[in-house]
Amino acid sequence: MIHLPDDEILPLSMEHNFWTWSAQGKVNPIPVKSARGVYFWDVNDKRYLDLNSMTMCVNIGHGDERVIQAIVDQARELPFAGPGMATRPRALLGKKLAEILPAGLTRYLYTLGGADANENAIKLARGYTGKFKVLSRYRSYHGATFGAISATGDPRRVAWEPTVMPGVVHFLDPYRYRSTFHRTNPGISEDEFCQDYLNHLEEIIQYEGPQTIAAILVESVTGTNGVIVPPAGYLPGVRRLCDKYGIVMICDEVMSGFGRTGEWFAVNHWDVRPDILTMAKGLTSGYAPLGAVAMKPEIADAFKDRVYEGGLTYNGHPISLAAAVATIEVMQQDHLVEKARATGQVMADMLAELVERHPSVGEVRSIGLFGIIELVRDRKTREPLAPYNGSSPEMAAYKKYLLDHGVYQSVHWHTALLLPPLIITPEQLAEGFAVIDKALDITDQAVK
Amino acid sequence: MIHLPDDEILPLSMEHNFWTWSAQGKVNPIPVKSARGVYFWDVNDKRYLDLNSMTMCVNIGHGDERVIQAIVDQARELPFAGPGMATRPRALLGKKLAEILPAGLTRYLYTLGGADANENAIKLARGYTGKFKVLSRYRSYHGATFGAISATGDPRRVAWEPTVMPGVVHFLDPYRYRSTFHRTNPGISEDEFCQDYLNHLEEIIQYEGPQTIAAILVESVTGTNGVIVPPAGYLPGVRRLCDKYGIVMICDEVMSGFGRTGEWFAVNHWDVRPDILTMAKGLTSGYAPLGAVAMKPEIADAFKDRVYEGGLTYNGHPISLAAAVATIEVMQQDHLVEKARATGQVMADMLAELVERHPSVGEVRSIGLFGIIELVRDRKTREPLAPYNGSSPEMAAYKKYLLDHGVYQSVHWHTALLLPPLIITPEQLAEGFAVIDKALDITDQAVK
Repeated sequence: MIHLPDDEILPLSMEHNFWTWSAQGKVNPIPVKSARGVYFWDVNDKRYLDLNSMTMCVNIGHGDERVIQAIVDQARELPFAGPGMATRPRALLGKKLAEILPAGLTRYLYTLGGADANENAIKLARGYTGKFKVLSRYRSYHGATFGAISATGDPRRVAWEPTVMPGVVHFLDPYRYRSTFHRTNPGISEDEFCQDYLNHLEEIIQYEGPQTIAAILVESVTGTNGVIVPPAGYLPGVRRLCDKYGIVMICDEVMSGFGRTGEWFAVNHWDVRPDILTMAKGLTSGYAPLGAVAMKPEIADAFKDRVYEGGLTYNGHPISLAAAVATIEVMQQDHLVEKARATGQVMADMLAELVERHPSVGEVRSIGLFGIIELVRDRKTREPLAPYNGSSPEMAAYKKYLLDHGVYQSVHWHTALLLPPLIITPEQLAEGFAVIDKALDITDQAVK
Repeated sequence: MIHLPDDEILPLSMEHNFWTWSAQGKVNPIPVKSARGVYFWDVNDKRYLDLNSMTMCVNIGHGDERVIQAIVDQARELPFAGPGMATRPRALLGKKLAEILPAGLTRYLYTLGGADANENAIKLARGYTGKFKVLSRYRSYHGATFGAISATGDPRRVAWEPTVMPGVVHFLDPYRYRSTFHRTNPGISEDEFCQDYLNHLEEIIQYEGPQTIAAILVESVTGTNGVIVPPAGYLPGVRRLCDKYGIVMICDEVMSGFGRTGEWFAVNHWDVRPDILTMAKGLTSGYAPLGAVAMKPEIADAFKDRVYEGGLTYNGHPISLAAAVATIEVMQQDHLVEKARATGQVMADMLAELVERHPSVGEVRSIGLFGIIELVRDRKTREPLAPYNGSSPEMAAYKKYLLDHGVYQSVHWHTALLLPPLIITPEQLAEGFAVIDKALDITDQAVK
């Protein structure tokens, strides 16, 4: 390791780095020195409790020696081989993924992250169906490359319009807390609510023409933009519509996969089998960059005789594949999926308590260790504490309080997300919630 | 390392892997077991001389212990930190890149490969200029994500039309051997030839409207589609046109960077300073996935107060950054740029000899260790030995001969590329050329 004094990390990074998703003059990077378990430390030895798994990815927690060792071993054995080559980790990861994925998803295309996984999923669906349109939802985020950002529904897409990939149509998420058409019918049963949103999707399919639609692409649980857990019948209903109209069902499990929701993949909660499932983040827990597209064999077979026009230099990077194999083994050995389910129940109870104690908490939602707090100025009108795609002094103050008190949490518009490493203990979770509880005293002041 | 017998690597990879850029029923992957220097070995201990640096990326050669050790050390110290964080390798790589890049390119945005580097370059140019169009060339390849593939000129773009990113216009490369408009004037001087192609670019700028053009994106030396080395005045001329019309000049050095041409970056040959330079491949020599966008500070400063809308989970992955720092140090310690220049002269001589000996060799071109052999049926008509975007029995036989005799080379349409690791010795190069020489006896049979 090349020497660099700790106190030069931040100034030197500031001098040369261009910071993504940021105004360069307003960044305030944490100079991170080390990370272990659910914590990381900055160069001043300040400790942070990581309630965001860094970038929603470090599901197994920081510094797991088993994954590090797998990276070390692979780096020593064979750090790189080309995309057209068979390697030991390529063979092994295929076998591992077949063990944990929903039955039938047996063929894998490797990428480097979720964005290019979703891009390839779209290409596969287009090539397989011979159709071109993609339906996705307004509250989705599918990645920042131009194809993925076009499928994205949120403002990160709008920023690049009109020069995005054509052929994507957005429909509405089954977002009960803010459902436009149920304003005057808030007591509707879950089944009827679900049916309304399936009917809405079918209406859009009709208007757009099923003969033009290659794929419906959904986050199984909408992530950053709301942790919107679909009603029980929703994904099975989407599956039926896809079957009815010959549309490929793509589930984006980049954030919801690998135990996050208390199942290996969120679709398992509703026993749904998509035609294509995309993953990244938890796949390697961030230890090495990797994304993947899992598909049913019929889709792969559509490219048996004709060339699949897509790829990348680092398709199947051996170190990344080895990290994924080790990550899955860690999750299996330590029963992290089961753990997430159990601790998820603890977190749900803690979230419910916040609703009791804090008038600025409009609603909480969670599934497994995937949770959100929606902050409002008024529980009745549900006026959010920051506007759509905006911020507010109160939300900034909330975030500042957390950071000052050593809790790292993702704050998005008027919401605060909860995606801790799956290894978090109830005690560590309580430690985080104690700080959140205090921070909510600040936002409570904004309640009308 | 998890155990898997060598003989299971290929069948298990075949069972689960979806192969990119391929028809699944026609793949024939090499099961690679190890790699060292300019060679790699399959599971049957067959040795291959790697004349393609795997995927045009392993510039420092295989298995360099110094880069492996850097990966090991970083994996043990801090395998991951989020994109918004400052880390030791982020600080160090910034410093290193500032040492080796053309003066003025001092701010760096990290990606995972060339495709997303080019996508971000386009976004930066659009944001900086407030304009949207991108001009790029027909023979270019800029990556497979939807934005990058739209900028790509070659058939890999056409495969996904019309649903690619709008706003890209393609112009012609200064490809002297097949220049449409110089058919009847083959003796034109290099200066005049160059001027014709600059005039052509200016004509397109006029037609498209300079007020709509954000960027001109060019591979400094066109890569896969011809190793087209521009005439001396070409890139300086593009620079002048960009200045004249307020257009951002983006040089894609994903393939041509990191010593490939006998300079750190190909633009150095002509003392050209682009506004943005993209890189990947040689940046880490493939040991870990990394791409980068280098920009002049004015472009970064355009996002001082407003948010740059782009990013990825693995922006600045510590292991990738550490691998890049180590790769650059290896290149500096071992004087690989100078070495590539010297061995490049040896390769140029060997290429010239092929022209003497083989009537099927229409032309050879090279700069540093970046070379190509163009195979023809007829030197006079220059009829290529395989059609544009196609193959032929003769080209397939050429490739098969090489593989059978342990030489790994990229064969593209009617051309054979030469991009060996920069550490290759003249003796090793001669070893490869001896096999190429025999293989060309096959293609010679096709000459009319």
